[in-house]
Amino acid sequence: MNRTAVDSEGAWFERERIDELRRRLPITYVDVVPVRTDLDGSVTEVGLLLRASGDGEIVRAIVSGRVLIHETIREAIGRHIEKDLGPMAMPRIPVSPVPFTVAEYFPTPGVSPFHDARQHAISLAYVVPIDGETAPQEDALELSWFGIDELLGDSSPLEEMNGGRDLLVRRALAHVGVV
Amino acid sequence: MNRTAVDSEGAWFERERIDELRRRLPITYVDVVPVRTDLDGSVTEVGLLLRASGDGEIVRAIVSGRVLIHETIREAIGRHIEKDLGPMAMPRIPVSPVPFTVAEYFPTPGVSPFHDARQHAISLAYVVPIDGETAPQEDALELSWFGIDELLGDSSPLEEMNGGRDLLVRRALAHVGVV
Amino acid sequence: MNRTAVDSEGAWFERERIDELRRRLPITYVDVVPVRTDLDGSVTEVGLLLRASGDGEIVRAIVSGRVLIHETIREAIGRHIEKDLGPMAMPRIPVSPVPFTVAEYFPTPGVSPFHDARQHAISLAYVVPIDGETAPQEDALELSWFGIDELLGDSSPLEEMNGGRDLLVRRALAHVGVV
Amino acid sequence: MNRTAVDSEGAWFERERIDELRRRLPITYVDVVPVRTDLDGSVTEVGLLLRASGDGEIVRAIVSGRVLIHETIREAIGRHIEKDLGPMAMPRIPVSPVPFTVAEYFPTPGVSPFHDARQHAISLAYVVPIDGETAPQEDALELSWFGIDELLGDSSPLEEMNGGRDLLVRRALAHVGVV
Repeated sequence: MNRTAVDSEGAWFERERIDELRRRLPITYVDVVPVRTDLDGSVTEVGLLLRASGDGEIVRAIVSGRVLIHETIREAIGRHIEKDLGPMAMPRIPVSPVPFTVAEYFPTPGVSPFHDARQHAISLAYVVPIDGETAPQEDALELSWFGIDELLGDSSPLEEMNGGRDLLVRRALAHVGVV
Repeated sequence: MNRTAVDSEGAWFERERIDELRRRLPITYVDVVPVRTDLDGSVTEVGLLLRASGDGEIVRAIVSGRVLIHETIREAIGRHIEKDLGPMAMPRIPVSPVPFTVAEYFPTPGVSPFHDARQHAISLAYVVPIDGETAPQEDALELSWFGIDELLGDSSPLEEMNGGRDLLVRRALAHVGVV
Repeated sequence: MNRTAVDSEGAWFERERIDELRRRLPITYVDVVPVRTDLDGSVTEVGLLLRASGDGEIVRAIVSGRVLIHETIREAIGRHIEKDLGPMAMPRIPVSPVPFTVAEYFPTPGVSPFHDARQHAISLAYVVPIDGETAPQEDALELSWFGIDELLGDSSPLEEMNGGRDLLVRRALAHVGVV
Repeated sequence: MNRTAVDSEGAWFERERIDELRRRLPITYVDVVPVRTDLDGSVTEVGLLLRASGDGEIVRAIVSGRVLIHETIREAIGRHIEKDLGPMAMPRIPVSPVPFTVAEYFPTPGVSPFHDARQHAISLAYVVPIDGETAPQEDALELSWFGIDELLGDSSPLEEMNGGRDLLVRRALAHVGVV
């Protein structure tokens, strides 16, 4: 398998096969906004990865990846969190399968607020509080936790996200009631 | 294309191709629970189709089908409602892309409450109020609107649903607050 | 009853009584973000009232008001829409009682993003598509429908809202997936 | 203050005052369905209290109580969990203020599925995973954790709930995807 820095899929496929599938079907993803919370459940920080995007740009990113065949959404959430935040991250995976939003990524820009040059992806997005220790893994240069004020202020790290993914974080903040 | 009574997908594929894809990837679906409402938004009736299932059984069914490549979820909802309820049905498609539940259908029974022998499907489920005239289309024998009491009573039509799809209707009723 | 331009409650109380209750209990409200949609359910416009606030400022406002004793939330939504948008407004009241957000207004600024000098109010917020004709009623100077671009652009009418209510509209836009 | 076995409100009021308020305004409540989860977030058990109801009946109950003036919903959730499950219970309070359902209790039976002879209450309902140790407190005779099969089987403890509160647990189970 030709695994690259941008292949965040824990893939069981060869590259060609998945490329062919991507021309035929929307691909199901999970997007996870990792957060730190106060004891009362209030979100205080959001975790963002720094990584190389598909076209070599350095971007901020949330935890994200495909749902594999025969895998439950819960398993996919847990697997991608471990892949991106490390084995010591202790996620509180949501009790409900209902996402806070659904992001539709299209290869053609402008069809929706989300864009992915590689594929049509339909992503179920969840806010997941993370306890334990987190560390950037192989594909990421850095993992940083940003306070709400930093996210909402000038020169926010959200401006370093691509494909409209900053909107996912903004929708997450709206959903949890901090903005 | 070999279109059969159970092919509810408005397919752009030959049967073989989609069968191969189904072995490789979860397939994204929309499930739509069609409802009639009072003026105040209260759900009074649920629409169920009567159709032949994949293995020849006669079952009750909700509106359901794949999301196609390059198609938005809103388009898929509208297309499947027209396909199943006819061109005079006037759906009030939800303003939000957030489903009331996500149903994960697995080919292996028991992995989740939902089962589909053909595939691993991930279905976003929506309650959609329908105005206008509805009529069963080519694939269905009948379309009936059932009151809440009929759905909750003895010998409910929900018992004639397969693959756990009655749960989808029950979750819809819980979501809208009638049970 | 001493009804004033800012009394948006369809009150069954004398002013003094409600003032006393407001010192003792959180008051349950509904906040309604009125929207126009495309046929596919996409939100295209948001309706905002122009009215005098409690302290005489001219502000933009959404439809809002108390839930009265023995009144259902659905009835309260319908009543306040008729009160603010007129009897020819045809709201599509949501099928589910689940609000897209809950706004907690405190008399002390800073406890939450929402502030109401008069009271502690707990408001269930709904996005409600409006068909039919709308017109500003007695308490309002104007009712205007704004496109998404106007709401998100410079000198947005959202900046003319008070008490954090612009956040409610922003959360509504996030919920429906336009931002 | 005349505190009785059924006064679950952590009240700051004398009994008479609250009785008068209850005749004038809907009272805001939080209902909490306490659950145990697997590591992947799946709900495995629901916690139910055994207590005396207002009319002396012994009933199963969830965690429930008023939101006090100047109290946030998060604080009310935390306070009622501590009151009912004890100080060693470690709740994972939801990141979002959006309830999974809203229960409207009316003193007149039949207006809604929920009934409370004392008052018109509007209750925001949350599913809250509980870690740590739990124990019944002063007002309760017992606290038991029931598996999903027990809740769905014959002679379910849900049948021992009053005022329609079993529906709240059923809606919670639908929301988390176990039924």
